[in-house]
Amino acid sequence: MVQPGSKGKVLLAYSGGLDTSCILVWLIEQGYDVVAYLANVGQEEDFNAAREKAMKIGAKSFHCDDLRREFVEELIYPAVQANCIYEGIYLLGTSLARPVIARGMMAVAKREGCDFVSHGCTGKGNDQVRFELAFYGLNPEITVIAPWRNPEFYDRFPGRSALLQYAAEKGIPVSQTTSKPWSTDENLFHISYEAGILEDPNTTPPADMWKLTQSPQEAPEKPEDITIEFANGLPVKLHVKETGKTHTDKVDVFVTLNALARNHGIGRIDIVENRFIGLKSRGCYESPGATILRAAHMDLEGLTLDRNVRALRDQFITPQLSNILYNGYFFSPERDFVVSAIPASQKTVNGEVKLKLYKGNVVVCGRKSDEGLYDESAASMDELGGFLPTDTTGFIAIESIRLRQWAKAKAAKGQSGIEPTDVY
Amino acid sequence: MVQPGSKGKVLLAYSGGLDTSCILVWLIEQGYDVVAYLANVGQEEDFNAAREKAMKIGAKSFHCDDLRREFVEELIYPAVQANCIYEGIYLLGTSLARPVIARGMMAVAKREGCDFVSHGCTGKGNDQVRFELAFYGLNPEITVIAPWRNPEFYDRFPGRSALLQYAAEKGIPVSQTTSKPWSTDENLFHISYEAGILEDPNTTPPADMWKLTQSPQEAPEKPEDITIEFANGLPVKLHVKETGKTHTDKVDVFVTLNALARNHGIGRIDIVENRFIGLKSRGCYESPGATILRAAHMDLEGLTLDRNVRALRDQFITPQLSNILYNGYFFSPERDFVVSAIPASQKTVNGEVKLKLYKGNVVVCGRKSDEGLYDESAASMDELGGFLPTDTTGFIAIESIRLRQWAKAKAAKGQSGIEPTDVY
Amino acid sequence: MVQPGSKGKVLLAYSGGLDTSCILVWLIEQGYDVVAYLANVGQEEDFNAAREKAMKIGAKSFHCDDLRREFVEELIYPAVQANCIYEGIYLLGTSLARPVIARGMMAVAKREGCDFVSHGCTGKGNDQVRFELAFYGLNPEITVIAPWRNPEFYDRFPGRSALLQYAAEKGIPVSQTTSKPWSTDENLFHISYEAGILEDPNTTPPADMWKLTQSPQEAPEKPEDITIEFANGLPVKLHVKETGKTHTDKVDVFVTLNALARNHGIGRIDIVENRFIGLKSRGCYESPGATILRAAHMDLEGLTLDRNVRALRDQFITPQLSNILYNGYFFSPERDFVVSAIPASQKTVNGEVKLKLYKGNVVVCGRKSDEGLYDESAASMDELGGFLPTDTTGFIAIESIRLRQWAKAKAAKGQSGIEPTDVY
Amino acid sequence: MVQPGSKGKVLLAYSGGLDTSCILVWLIEQGYDVVAYLANVGQEEDFNAAREKAMKIGAKSFHCDDLRREFVEELIYPAVQANCIYEGIYLLGTSLARPVIARGMMAVAKREGCDFVSHGCTGKGNDQVRFELAFYGLNPEITVIAPWRNPEFYDRFPGRSALLQYAAEKGIPVSQTTSKPWSTDENLFHISYEAGILEDPNTTPPADMWKLTQSPQEAPEKPEDITIEFANGLPVKLHVKETGKTHTDKVDVFVTLNALARNHGIGRIDIVENRFIGLKSRGCYESPGATILRAAHMDLEGLTLDRNVRALRDQFITPQLSNILYNGYFFSPERDFVVSAIPASQKTVNGEVKLKLYKGNVVVCGRKSDEGLYDESAASMDELGGFLPTDTTGFIAIESIRLRQWAKAKAAKGQSGIEPTDVY
Repeated sequence: MVQPGSKGKVLLAYSGGLDTSCILVWLIEQGYDVVAYLANVGQEEDFNAAREKAMKIGAKSFHCDDLRREFVEELIYPAVQANCIYEGIYLLGTSLARPVIARGMMAVAKREGCDFVSHGCTGKGNDQVRFELAFYGLNPEITVIAPWRNPEFYDRFPGRSALLQYAAEKGIPVSQTTSKPWSTDENLFHISYEAGILEDPNTTPPADMWKLTQSPQEAPEKPEDITIEFANGLPVKLHVKETGKTHTDKVDVFVTLNALARNHGIGRIDIVENRFIGLKSRGCYESPGATILRAAHMDLEGLTLDRNVRALRDQFITPQLSNILYNGYFFSPERDFVVSAIPASQKTVNGEVKLKLYKGNVVVCGRKSDEGLYDESAASMDELGGFLPTDTTGFIAIESIRLRQWAKAKAAKGQSGIEPTDVY
Repeated sequence: MVQPGSKGKVLLAYSGGLDTSCILVWLIEQGYDVVAYLANVGQEEDFNAAREKAMKIGAKSFHCDDLRREFVEELIYPAVQANCIYEGIYLLGTSLARPVIARGMMAVAKREGCDFVSHGCTGKGNDQVRFELAFYGLNPEITVIAPWRNPEFYDRFPGRSALLQYAAEKGIPVSQTTSKPWSTDENLFHISYEAGILEDPNTTPPADMWKLTQSPQEAPEKPEDITIEFANGLPVKLHVKETGKTHTDKVDVFVTLNALARNHGIGRIDIVENRFIGLKSRGCYESPGATILRAAHMDLEGLTLDRNVRALRDQFITPQLSNILYNGYFFSPERDFVVSAIPASQKTVNGEVKLKLYKGNVVVCGRKSDEGLYDESAASMDELGGFLPTDTTGFIAIESIRLRQWAKAKAAKGQSGIEPTDVY
Repeated sequence: MVQPGSKGKVLLAYSGGLDTSCILVWLIEQGYDVVAYLANVGQEEDFNAAREKAMKIGAKSFHCDDLRREFVEELIYPAVQANCIYEGIYLLGTSLARPVIARGMMAVAKREGCDFVSHGCTGKGNDQVRFELAFYGLNPEITVIAPWRNPEFYDRFPGRSALLQYAAEKGIPVSQTTSKPWSTDENLFHISYEAGILEDPNTTPPADMWKLTQSPQEAPEKPEDITIEFANGLPVKLHVKETGKTHTDKVDVFVTLNALARNHGIGRIDIVENRFIGLKSRGCYESPGATILRAAHMDLEGLTLDRNVRALRDQFITPQLSNILYNGYFFSPERDFVVSAIPASQKTVNGEVKLKLYKGNVVVCGRKSDEGLYDESAASMDELGGFLPTDTTGFIAIESIRLRQWAKAKAAKGQSGIEPTDVY
Repeated sequence: MVQPGSKGKVLLAYSGGLDTSCILVWLIEQGYDVVAYLANVGQEEDFNAAREKAMKIGAKSFHCDDLRREFVEELIYPAVQANCIYEGIYLLGTSLARPVIARGMMAVAKREGCDFVSHGCTGKGNDQVRFELAFYGLNPEITVIAPWRNPEFYDRFPGRSALLQYAAEKGIPVSQTTSKPWSTDENLFHISYEAGILEDPNTTPPADMWKLTQSPQEAPEKPEDITIEFANGLPVKLHVKETGKTHTDKVDVFVTLNALARNHGIGRIDIVENRFIGLKSRGCYESPGATILRAAHMDLEGLTLDRNVRALRDQFITPQLSNILYNGYFFSPERDFVVSAIPASQKTVNGEVKLKLYKGNVVVCGRKSDEGLYDESAASMDELGGFLPTDTTGFIAIESIRLRQWAKAKAAKGQSGIEPTDVY
């Protein structure tokens, strides 16, 4: 219930860090009742310490949801099924976590009767957009308070030292760790690094920045063999040769792949990407397990997915869903529409892939399936099977009708393609 | 000039191997004059031995064209500019060589007055299609003789032993090397392996199959640092730190990258792909230098290419040109059309990329450019620049109009998105 | 049961006309037992006369399936839902009928134990491909006999007079109608005209060619008002003001629209299109009712379909499904895939459209829906609603970040866009 | 030169109407020097009266540019070449005029030394976005003043009566015409109607709203025959049978087509469209000449454009360029990129189209070309030509490999496609 004299109840996405702690206190100062919310999406975090801190500095209550399972099952695995990737490189780790967090928040906001929701995202990034579009897509009546876009707030706190001073004044505990010269965001899928010294795109990230994975150079000399089984394009079984263990629980499969990939130096990238708001930005990411899954899934599709379905899916679902996720339109009619075609694309993606992990490499060593779209006899160069060689003559004759007509028309204009020329 | 009594002159794509040697003799037996043609597209080959053999077994003449430069400049580099890739993995090495070979052949056919052209491709593969569509696109009046699709030929030579017996009868020299249990096709860009034991997609290729590259495990322990400079998306300079050398000739740049990548175990892939004729087929490839160039080019585009141009190019040119190349439609109106948009997409792709090569990994370490599309100050999380945080509030408000309307309409129907549910 | 001495049983797509009657007799001559099949897909035809003729000239049995309902419900309406159209103009009438006919045939072939299937399609058209791909997609073991692609047949019957002579010899009854100088194919959806005098694309079709519709000039002077209601993008109710009648049966709705459109001169087109085999071909079509439905459905989507869903659907489903249908890939994994996304695209396409039919014109006069995606107050230029005008300022500021950066980079290179120049 | 004490010079897009006259005076009141700008893009307007009024109420100067030729040549005809259309129906008339107007304004702003630019667009429409993105794309340093998004302005002038009162106070002449219950925007290409009574999408527009065209019912009983010739997809010659006149000047061709179409009731549409900012909006448009050109151009492409080029162009350039134009990204890297592919798509679009205009209908009666991509003999159903019927057998055999494999795999799972079932 909202306190007498309160402007209302705000649900704050709270991390326990300096920024959101100051925001929590500032919101109280502005006259709001504050409910703190912290989602467990697999990040390394002391959730109890965060709870204690939030309550200590004035939160009316604190909610911590363990969203790891829905993160894996509802966000990560569908992205694997659709081979989601942004600008050819980025596996969308931060984007994927936002919808489950936002949904968790909107559920708590409903239970707690919060009319307001707040977060500590900056005014230049993607995450503010992803959070807020998700909030509005789930609850069109919610009101967002974004302090870092509010001049009253950002003019008052122009830098870290102003926040530290405010914390000192208000008795907000500050951990003694010195700030790293970059920002991070971590979850079960990945960790991101951006800002600070990384803003010069020509600066090589320092070796000690990378937190999740070993460097390929420090990774073991000995390769590791694993097998992943997929059903309808979803990973359902992981076998690790070394341990002899088989993993079938969806979260366990992903967590185990993460551990393997971290050990073998797999999943680091360093890119300049284009944010939704139109700025170019440099980001470094570690997505260990996801990198293995992507390689395995794409490989199995080679064996089990019809050519034309694959081509259409690649042209339509993969880029569109990736954009939708990157830009924060998870709760939207276009996502509903685009994902509705995924199941039909994955019906035959059943089988298993053998992989070798070694110093940053994910090497496919073989794959098998009972689906029957690969026909060894038909494909064989050594035997006739399925069709006659003369059929191909007819095929080429028909396929060339259009080309020959075009070539004749060009010849009639005196144009020849025979001489080497600049291709463009 | 065609000999009296001859059915006419055939230009034969001749490799010096058993198949095309038997075809050469068989064509003569059928009453044709045969002109042999061998293109140097960078494969490891004894061109003089091939010439001698062709002439010895009855060719009227022998032509060998060095097409390496036009292969690099007209085929390989445009494919790099457009990030061409087939089914997400295959860099199109065989496909890229076919157009220059076909063009070389059609030029010789014209000079020599050949009305016929022949080749030793099988009746199930892509290369027959690529060759013949290229022939027809260049010369719609040419007639193709494809022995492996002619029952008179393939019924007579059902296997290698029949060819060997024919060679013995006809005095065709046969080299003593035992046949490998797979087929290969090599050029400057790559080598392919298929057929034979590879037809079981679950068979891991034997370690001694890989010819061009060292395995990552045997590659040097020491990483290698290089810098590649691009102008309009084309590689124009390669600097190798270790040697201190700078390479600027286009062919030299590519050849040097090949040598570096081969040493560091870069560029192996193993896939099941979909052939143009609709069969699934297992192929292994080594594309060493091309793998480095692709990573570097895509990275530089992150820094220098406008977001929307990149997205449209990725959606349109890259997949379409890749398909056109894979399927053999290089000499076609659709290629003319698609490539006409490449220059506009690459105007700003100027700058350089720092890379580290290490045991199969191509690691981007930094990139720079004078293009000015990356604005460190605007992108910075630490300063205001270019726009106000409040602008983003307006942006999100407008972007959410559509979502909120949709969410309200759903709510009016009693549908809520807040409860966790199966995403699909 | 196959007769002793027979080569087997053939199911022949039989029309009762000269070609398929000669084929029927010729197949018997070749040693086959022939089962005749005629589908009722709404064409004007004397089905009993066809049955009598088939049995008289030697068919073992005759099957006639009334496929009109499944044609409307399974082919026509889904095409309306997806706005299918080929090359921007052709509504795919012939293509839509082929799958239901082929499916009817394969069901009879199974019941009758036919290992062979035959048809009278020519060797240059689309329909042979559509039929045969459908046969194979339904029954990969079936064997097709295509007489018009068999030299024994087409060399023996080089023209109509040879067929007439054969008919005379074999006692095949020939109707007395003189042949029209074009070919037609009719079904409930449309009629096509091609070949003969139409092969000169500059020849205006004679007025008496058009069979289904009145010409706009002869159509009534008085406009006709109708209302069509859609549920999930499917037409579910038609109200005709003049008659006061309301039609709700799916077939009745379509048949009634056909009658209205035929009367008002709606649905004629005349195009040069590109056949699947790569030839250009001139065709004229009348698709009366379908033309009205298309206009109505697209209009209602304006009111009820989310912008982004519409754009993605237009970019993906509409062209791909249209191509799939045109080229005859109805029974294919890619159709399964593409249509799986239609329901999600049509969830909100509920409402009704008012139309006026007049001399070839289908005029939209208004539309309404309870879906709630159109918000009169938010859209109104006369009131504030939903968002603040200042939000748009922020929106434009953010949307222009990328453009301004680009413009600054161009200016730094001395390039200005201000002077009028050739756009290209 | 900016006056002492002035805040600076503003270039105002001035129409002479009530809104922009009040804005002009209000800007002066705010301390700016105002330069008025009026572009002649073919709208019906008293340009001299506008000049006199602007100067009378305080403008420092007045500029009127006749932009009709560049509008036709640089905007309209390229859109015709690319078949631009938004949401399948709207021909983009307003969008097309904005870039030339914005470019005219930026040129004057440069000459006059204006640091500010202003316009009278509302805060909910597309035109504010189109104008401002164009301004920024041409001059990233310009500052926009948008009074209708400025609370000081819109709170002061909440409706027409407040503006009228201000006009009375400030001596702004007001024309006596009563305001129509909708807004219009007119140029050489089209006129738009929106807002007011049109905001109810079920309201049929009153007959007297339509200004440019006669209604089909009132159009002449007698059809009109014309011929349009295209070169590289651009209209270069118009022949009108009735007058015997031939028009070749680009503007004259367009103006004449407008006159013909207006007379014959061609080019009206009524739609609900999706604005860039995400609102649905009802608009009515008359685009007379453009409707004829579109029909003629698309028809000629059937005869002269390669199938695959057409398909790729339809899939890529047409929708992307249409979106770019609709959303106001004319001066952008993505437009540069997209239009760079148009010339290659139109090389063969040469020839002429015969058309009949009649009561709202544009009927194609024939077309011809010397391009040679249509081959009457090859296409003929009555003769062999170009390829053998047996080739098609091979073609179908190869095309069905994939389908048969799929059908076999389905059969192995006990799935049959033969029974009629719901397609979805």
